[in-house]
Amino acid sequence: MAESEAAVPVALDDPSYRAAVVDLLAVIAYGEITAFDRLTEDAKLAPTLEDKVALYQMASIEFGHLTRLRDRLAQLGAEPYAAMAPFVEALDGFHQHTAPSDWLEGLVKAYVGDGLAADFYREIAAALDADTRDLIIASLADAGHSDFVVERVKKAIADDHRVAGRLALWGRRLMGEALSQAQRVAAERDALSALLAGGVDRPGMDLAALGRMFTRLTEAHSQRMADLGLEA
Amino acid sequence: MAESEAAVPVALDDPSYRAAVVDLLAVIAYGEITAFDRLTEDAKLAPTLEDKVALYQMASIEFGHLTRLRDRLAQLGAEPYAAMAPFVEALDGFHQHTAPSDWLEGLVKAYVGDGLAADFYREIAAALDADTRDLIIASLADAGHSDFVVERVKKAIADDHRVAGRLALWGRRLMGEALSQAQRVAAERDALSALLAGGVDRPGMDLAALGRMFTRLTEAHSQRMADLGLEA
Repeated sequence: MAESEAAVPVALDDPSYRAAVVDLLAVIAYGEITAFDRLTEDAKLAPTLEDKVALYQMASIEFGHLTRLRDRLAQLGAEPYAAMAPFVEALDGFHQHTAPSDWLEGLVKAYVGDGLAADFYREIAAALDADTRDLIIASLADAGHSDFVVERVKKAIADDHRVAGRLALWGRRLMGEALSQAQRVAAERDALSALLAGGVDRPGMDLAALGRMFTRLTEAHSQRMADLGLEA
Repeated sequence: MAESEAAVPVALDDPSYRAAVVDLLAVIAYGEITAFDRLTEDAKLAPTLEDKVALYQMASIEFGHLTRLRDRLAQLGAEPYAAMAPFVEALDGFHQHTAPSDWLEGLVKAYVGDGLAADFYREIAAALDADTRDLIIASLADAGHSDFVVERVKKAIADDHRVAGRLALWGRRLMGEALSQAQRVAAERDALSALLAGGVDRPGMDLAALGRMFTRLTEAHSQRMADLGLEA
């Protein structure tokens, strides 16, 4: 115990900062679990065994990230699954409201949805202590699993142009649902929203900075839609 | 291409031996995929988030094994997914006939079913070239994922003794279904059964040796049932 405590950076001595970091790591960790849920569920829609295995591979990568986040939560003195509990409803709600109706919708969701979530968490991580920031950035690596998804979606659009209109609508719906669940989490978790607002000894974001962050998130979203050959 | 060919052991120059090894690696690889299917499906029955994640962890371990088998199949000049195709029906059939009706049946199936399959493949691997044997043995490590399952099943029996009778019946049914699917695969895949029978320059099993192997498999099965606190 003494050893793992020693490894915790000084910034985490502040209880409210520590609570916020636990919240943040827990919501990302639960996000990895729901990504695993969803990828293994969507794999059932795969047209070939090889495509199914590609989704299983993505799920396994998410699992690797989860392990590190879980260990870190325990190191911070949190019970990892109890720490995730406050986020279960919002994240499960997002996935229930955006259950893909076919294989392509599942791929677009993995690319666009996970990409958006990763960008958002990276924005928050930028203001945190270096250890926490590095862990978060490593946990978000490969989110969206770009090459496989881009190749499959572009090919489907090349085969049938009508697919593009349907998937573009789907991408907009994903963005809308993600925003509504993010607002819900922010409203309920004061510690987490305080991370964005900053503290006495930590720079935060004023309204103008929040606006710029939102602009960056939507620009990156539009870029991902364009990567797939879709209008944002 | 020349480089990967150079890494293939001399024994694999014999086309019928190579075909048999491709069959064997392919059936084990497809077994890993169905294990992943099943563990992620059974995870939905988990009583807690932590238990669910324990099953996801097992699935991720299976995925790591699959990757190595798939690479080896490609190295042997086989298209991995085409090589798995002949085994899809038998393995899917096994899982359809043994769909667990609750969380505990799923755990017993992982422990007893995967343990039995691993023992069987190890028996075959013993007669093969060292490279193939080592790959197979590494691919079967952690099959059944013992500690977690033993602990959960024993606790459930301690809580309610009637569980033991039901799960003992379940274990016998798993053994019966596994034998019937194994016979089906052996009957359909000549190259694979020839591995057991041996060849001109390779020792095989006569009927007495096959009988002894079967005894070893059933004894190990009974031991696994006993580990769980169940009568075989």
